[in-house]
Amino acid sequence: MRVGLDIGGTKIDAVVLDDDLTAAANVRIPSGRGADGVLASAERAVREVVTTHGASLVEVSSVGVGIPGMVDASTGEVRHAVNLDVEHLALSDELAARIGAPVRVENDVKAAALGAYHLLGLRGSAALLNLGTGLAAGIVVDGCLWRGAEGGAGEIGHIPVVPGGLLCSCGQRGCLETVASGSAVARLWPSETEPPAVALFDAADAGDPRAQQVRRVLAEGVASAVRVLVLTVDVGAVILAGGLSNLGDRLLEPVRDALHEWGGESPFLASLRLAERMRMLPPRLPAAAVGAALVGGSAPVARVEQTGTESRELLEGHPWKS
Amino acid sequence: MRVGLDIGGTKIDAVVLDDDLTAAANVRIPSGRGADGVLASAERAVREVVTTHGASLVEVSSVGVGIPGMVDASTGEVRHAVNLDVEHLALSDELAARIGAPVRVENDVKAAALGAYHLLGLRGSAALLNLGTGLAAGIVVDGCLWRGAEGGAGEIGHIPVVPGGLLCSCGQRGCLETVASGSAVARLWPSETEPPAVALFDAADAGDPRAQQVRRVLAEGVASAVRVLVLTVDVGAVILAGGLSNLGDRLLEPVRDALHEWGGESPFLASLRLAERMRMLPPRLPAAAVGAALVGGSAPVARVEQTGTESRELLEGHPWKS
Repeated sequence: MRVGLDIGGTKIDAVVLDDDLTAAANVRIPSGRGADGVLASAERAVREVVTTHGASLVEVSSVGVGIPGMVDASTGEVRHAVNLDVEHLALSDELAARIGAPVRVENDVKAAALGAYHLLGLRGSAALLNLGTGLAAGIVVDGCLWRGAEGGAGEIGHIPVVPGGLLCSCGQRGCLETVASGSAVARLWPSETEPPAVALFDAADAGDPRAQQVRRVLAEGVASAVRVLVLTVDVGAVILAGGLSNLGDRLLEPVRDALHEWGGESPFLASLRLAERMRMLPPRLPAAAVGAALVGGSAPVARVEQTGTESRELLEGHPWKS
Repeated sequence: MRVGLDIGGTKIDAVVLDDDLTAAANVRIPSGRGADGVLASAERAVREVVTTHGASLVEVSSVGVGIPGMVDASTGEVRHAVNLDVEHLALSDELAARIGAPVRVENDVKAAALGAYHLLGLRGSAALLNLGTGLAAGIVVDGCLWRGAEGGAGEIGHIPVVPGGLLCSCGQRGCLETVASGSAVARLWPSETEPPAVALFDAADAGDPRAQQVRRVLAEGVASAVRVLVLTVDVGAVILAGGLSNLGDRLLEPVRDALHEWGGESPFLASLRLAERMRMLPPRLPAAAVGAALVGGSAPVARVEQTGTESRELLEGHPWKS
């Protein structure tokens, strides 16, 4: 029995994964803070979802965890998970000792990409573009996560697109993350109302020209991210996910408009059919938890620098691997 | 016996590939113009390199061709090879009929990437960044070309980096290709002297402040391309190739300077060690011809849209495939 956890800044989603990739059971509990709090809440999430499933802990064959921050997929260590007040946590070893089953850890966006790919029945290559507090992508090729030489694949949020633009958390200026993310919206459209993105879109719909301008900046930023993914990796599909994707068509439409406008000026760009490759992650799909469960049930990631081989082997031998 | 051709705008390089990936024989002849001219010169190149090798045509087991323009790797058709005055050419079928051996065709930059990867003994993932008339990259993962869903992987030359910048041949403005390519140099530093890039660098070295500014734009453009490749695909190595790479350290140094300067402002970027991943393709290495020979000796590319699987299968079964 494979268990998957999606540890977020406020809650943990846990699933028991069925053989057909549906969640046979799921629970949601608040996530703890700090290394000890995160560990305790992760253990509790596993125990609760297993109980909800009517099973016991000894039946758990593997646990996979998706978590924000810098994750070493080979050791299961987590660093700089700022939203969780975690500086360092040997999550894989510590949780495995408490659960009595092997635990594998993956960055949450990468886990979500893998989960979405399988839940949506995609083939070939796809990217999940996560528009959360930050902006990052997870890339999946032939059913396997593409991590890159050092685990940094998909960190497109730190590609500058506005020379001399706003200072990014990474130290550069005008990064994609400064124009197309939750933090970008909060910065460009400060609002008392939560979530700020809804306030922004409401104001834009009500005719506020500055809100319309900020919405345009956001839409073009998302469109730029899609363009970077297709021109570099040529992924067949780009799935928009993360907090901003809750806007649904309200976000999708202006992004499509921007892409079509660009395509009108560039037959080359139009030939790439960027807008057609884009879709929204359906709401309430537990993509990250399911993806984490898939990571948990996979072969270990080789700890070899600059090989890239690991991503190929990730899901080898699994029944759903085509 | 595998033969590889690199068809350029002015000359064809042909090699007979040894089992240890060295060129057992090579010849260079002028390339013909138009579909008929290209075909005739390609046939002549194969015949001459085989004769030079002291062999006969019946011993040729496969021919691979790297050629600029839009290549359908599954059918071996070439379109819009502007430098060769070719609008359409069924190169694979036509050349196979003349040679009596199977012929496979690949985009020249992708072929060069594959050849460089194997000739340099690389492992894991790598990109060849071609700074020719245009700017494009070829991406190799675990010894296999990464073509992407529709063969467009690596077309990073058409990622805009200067909002409202110079008009690019693709119809967009401020693309990487408008700041970091041979055509960019010719446009930003028009010169009677050939090649214009040498004139530019000479003027910059002589203290011309405008030449120094153009050199800086070029270096930052190349650095931006490296940053895009690493932040998106996280390739372990980036090999600079193409006409501008003949500048050698004169180009490499200012690109490294730009990357180090950016790293000084961004610890995140510094942690990626972009400058250390970069290297020049050694001069006179017949990367594209050798890569073409490797493509020629590989399994056919499946003609399935949006699968991506083909890139994995490309070199399966070859002795040098780790």
